[in-house]
Amino acid sequence: MTQTVAWLDLVADDIKRVEEKMRSGVSERYQDLQAVIDYLMGAGGKRLRPALTLMAANFYPVDKEKSYSLAASVELLHTATLVHDDLIDNSLFRRGLPTLNASWSPGATILTGDYLFARSAELTAETDHVRIVRIFAQTLMTIVGGELQQLFNDGHGRVPSYDEYHQRIYAKTASLFAAGTQTGGILCGAPEHEVQALHDYGYHLGMAFQIVDDVLDFRGDEDRIGKPVANDLRQGIATLPVMLFAEKSPGHPTILKAVRREPVSDKEILTVVEQIRASGCVEKAMEEARRFACQAQADLETLPNNPYRQAMHGIAD
Amino acid sequence: MTQTVAWLDLVADDIKRVEEKMRSGVSERYQDLQAVIDYLMGAGGKRLRPALTLMAANFYPVDKEKSYSLAASVELLHTATLVHDDLIDNSLFRRGLPTLNASWSPGATILTGDYLFARSAELTAETDHVRIVRIFAQTLMTIVGGELQQLFNDGHGRVPSYDEYHQRIYAKTASLFAAGTQTGGILCGAPEHEVQALHDYGYHLGMAFQIVDDVLDFRGDEDRIGKPVANDLRQGIATLPVMLFAEKSPGHPTILKAVRREPVSDKEILTVVEQIRASGCVEKAMEEARRFACQAQADLETLPNNPYRQAMHGIAD
Repeated sequence: MTQTVAWLDLVADDIKRVEEKMRSGVSERYQDLQAVIDYLMGAGGKRLRPALTLMAANFYPVDKEKSYSLAASVELLHTATLVHDDLIDNSLFRRGLPTLNASWSPGATILTGDYLFARSAELTAETDHVRIVRIFAQTLMTIVGGELQQLFNDGHGRVPSYDEYHQRIYAKTASLFAAGTQTGGILCGAPEHEVQALHDYGYHLGMAFQIVDDVLDFRGDEDRIGKPVANDLRQGIATLPVMLFAEKSPGHPTILKAVRREPVSDKEILTVVEQIRASGCVEKAMEEARRFACQAQADLETLPNNPYRQAMHGIAD
Repeated sequence: MTQTVAWLDLVADDIKRVEEKMRSGVSERYQDLQAVIDYLMGAGGKRLRPALTLMAANFYPVDKEKSYSLAASVELLHTATLVHDDLIDNSLFRRGLPTLNASWSPGATILTGDYLFARSAELTAETDHVRIVRIFAQTLMTIVGGELQQLFNDGHGRVPSYDEYHQRIYAKTASLFAAGTQTGGILCGAPEHEVQALHDYGYHLGMAFQIVDDVLDFRGDEDRIGKPVANDLRQGIATLPVMLFAEKSPGHPTILKAVRREPVSDKEILTVVEQIRASGCVEKAMEEARRFACQAQADLETLPNNPYRQAMHGIAD
């Protein structure tokens, strides 16, 4: 993690400009909305998505202002989906801070998310590339379609297939990573095969990123990630470590109950978590993440060598 | 109303193509989402917004396919805001049919609205005009900003000023009418002063349309509009007839209670509705609507005379 932060230093100054853009654009009449946006932007995060977008946008000489708009639009799209997700999941904390819906009405939370979608689209249009607008619109359809799919499949009550899992983490995470690096390449006028390589890098890195996130759900102590251990499984979502374990122990009663959304006690969860940890499936899932990260690094090979490519290689480590 | 429908006949065949576009674009994997979109699109309405957009887009030779995308994007943006509004207001019926949130979870309703925003943006991008994308993004910011403003001002507890009322109905209705006719003009390459005239026509017509809608809240019998009489006032929203009446009878206790969101009995509402009807303020509000409609007709004068201009003139009648 510390190393990733070091790689992100390369665009740290640019990220400040991106953050300014993220806060800007609110009409002076809407002071309450401005306060909320400042709050959301202050909640921070690593800004990994806009950083990767900026790196991709710097492979060739680029209109800096447009690159900030593009990176801000990526992060605002991400923020908008989080605002709606926290409301849907009734999550009260994110990154250790109260979520919007924790203190606001559902109506205000929905509308704030909508506003951020609109502002993200406006920033995308500032790139003057209609192809970039289209990619972002399609990415939002992918993200939302994946979430709806998950809601609709609630009743199926079984451990997902690998194909279903890959589709889910693509929709949830890799699609936006890929959209950011791909559109960065388009913005700076990279040749089409390099745009494709930048897209693939974002895709593979995003897949690795989400698997690591899913693995942390089994590894982390609660303090560090601010969520109870196996939070996904408690909500009936089986991620890669559970899927690998379920192959070894098909019909495990706690896992079946969980994916059927039947009540599962804390004790049952902690027992199955211990079993999963002891089974080696957490490490096996990490290997899968590592494979995706290696593919991301391989995608970079056809690109010109420069500090941005080196940073992108380093982040995938 | 019958007359308006006759004017809309001019683009009836095109509207069928627009409706096809509105239903299309859903990945085959999302069959449940497709069913919901078919349901929403089947709920219909007069399709006034896409019809006006198509008329504006036909002042000069236009790429028909792009004009359908543009008109579909206007109506999907409108539909998306209605889906979220019905959830926020907890409305169970719209146009006589159950709303999405009446039978669905809040999460699925939020995500469906988000999906429609994204699809609307994608269709906007199909026009290949980044300026059109920007106008739509800004219009969505205006619509949502207006709704947030109304939520935040809930506690103020007073009858709004004319300026506040105009801002509210601009955000709620006129902004999207104006965006539709303006972008129609941009799409067919109308000269800039005609694009402006088309924008102004949409703006003035939209203002008139919303005032008439607000007036119907005091005139209509419940059966016709499917809502209880004075539904806005029951929810604490003072529209033009109430504002005009409150000028004559400042400090009217029922109106004060309503705008302060204090409980108001059905009897109190029906009494003040009778008083407002007897005061002539409903007619006075209609005159204001008529003034806006006349301005809309005046806006058309600088435009080339053709069947579309005649229809737009007729609709404003």
